[in-house]
Amino acid sequence: MYKLVLLRHGESTWNLENRFTGWTDVPLTATGVAQAQAAGRLLKAEGYDFDVAYTSVLSRAIWTLWHCLDGMERTWLPVKHHWRLNERHYGALQGLNKSDMAKQYGDEQVLVWRRSYDTPPPALEANDPRTERGDRRYAGVDVPLTECLKDTVARVLPHWEGEIAPAIKAGQRVLIAAHGNSIRALVKHLDGIADDAIVGVNIPNGVPLVYELDANLKPIKSYYLGDAEAIAAAAAAVANQGKK
Amino acid sequence: MYKLVLLRHGESTWNLENRFTGWTDVPLTATGVAQAQAAGRLLKAEGYDFDVAYTSVLSRAIWTLWHCLDGMERTWLPVKHHWRLNERHYGALQGLNKSDMAKQYGDEQVLVWRRSYDTPPPALEANDPRTERGDRRYAGVDVPLTECLKDTVARVLPHWEGEIAPAIKAGQRVLIAAHGNSIRALVKHLDGIADDAIVGVNIPNGVPLVYELDANLKPIKSYYLGDAEAIAAAAAAVANQGKK
Repeated sequence: MYKLVLLRHGESTWNLENRFTGWTDVPLTATGVAQAQAAGRLLKAEGYDFDVAYTSVLSRAIWTLWHCLDGMERTWLPVKHHWRLNERHYGALQGLNKSDMAKQYGDEQVLVWRRSYDTPPPALEANDPRTERGDRRYAGVDVPLTECLKDTVARVLPHWEGEIAPAIKAGQRVLIAAHGNSIRALVKHLDGIADDAIVGVNIPNGVPLVYELDANLKPIKSYYLGDAEAIAAAAAAVANQGKK
Repeated sequence: MYKLVLLRHGESTWNLENRFTGWTDVPLTATGVAQAQAAGRLLKAEGYDFDVAYTSVLSRAIWTLWHCLDGMERTWLPVKHHWRLNERHYGALQGLNKSDMAKQYGDEQVLVWRRSYDTPPPALEANDPRTERGDRRYAGVDVPLTECLKDTVARVLPHWEGEIAPAIKAGQRVLIAAHGNSIRALVKHLDGIADDAIVGVNIPNGVPLVYELDANLKPIKSYYLGDAEAIAAAAAAVANQGKK
């Protein structure tokens, strides 16, 4: 049996401001830093240890991982970055306020943009100053202009199948620090959640999500570490972000 | 021509307390964090960029690198950790105050311990609670009980020759975040400094040291980035740490 731990980044400045973030590279808030450090201390206290950590190329996930590793006294562990673990690209919504958009377009439209499996938000124009095309970290990458969750699943899974799953099967204890939607993509795949059911899955910030996996990497069970009530409240808060 | 940048970690708690540190894993002070961030911003402002960063398995160098990369907006760069870039092992002096030792044993003896090329400080007993033997990060490593600089050179150079120099020759732009004595080991090797002359070389905390290297990795020139007077004062402060 294997254990895998998924960790959504701590609160970012744009989580706090309730703005659509996507690939915009915003920092953690002081709360986000504290969440990440607490996650590391909790993992250590619960006896978890890792051989390798995977993360995205976005600072809020990377800093979450760094603070978490520091809390575990494991700053020296190898870390592998990949853009495929990035947050879902939020297209032309990146930078806009979720409540403002709900007032303008209605809760239902915002919920479609946030949680529809296969309807992407409006795309960025290719020459929009917000596009990440030309950013050195994406050299050679076909940078999206928007993504629905289906798109995110399609680009996360090759990294899971090609890099992470083989590492787990080779006996490496793996920690993944990533984003709400790249983690939802992994959860959907691992748990075999239907396209129309994944809308109800919300990942709280900074709370370790443990999967116990069998030899074929099928989940035996999964659970969050920490205080159950606080975790449920955090997940509910994520679900409610797109309301007026 | 290649460029290589060496960066000694920012001020640590034991730098501040004037204690021999060696392989003891102490954190940065707030000043050390600020030095590392400033180094990153300076490197970015001066147009430096990197493809890969090397560091030790000690948190003060790792955190220095992380803050520096953040200051450069390069948190996503690959980082390679290796114990061979650790600080010189300070043996039985680890944890003791440099001035106290100077009062007890004299300035001259402390200078020998700090700067002699081939006389190590007294060794830790193998069962001393301060020894790093049994620490997971050193699994498979013949952990020293003390080191002179000659010993440090002997274990740093295989990592330079085997990993870092080939990366530079392959065109990778390299940043190394390490320690006073692992950097002195590299400087001695690069500049061909004699055994009895390296005593006079002091590396200030948190200041980028640039080497311009020819095709054979021989130095064309080297220089610190930043304010020359402040750097000279910082190096002099390092030189004076072991006095009463």
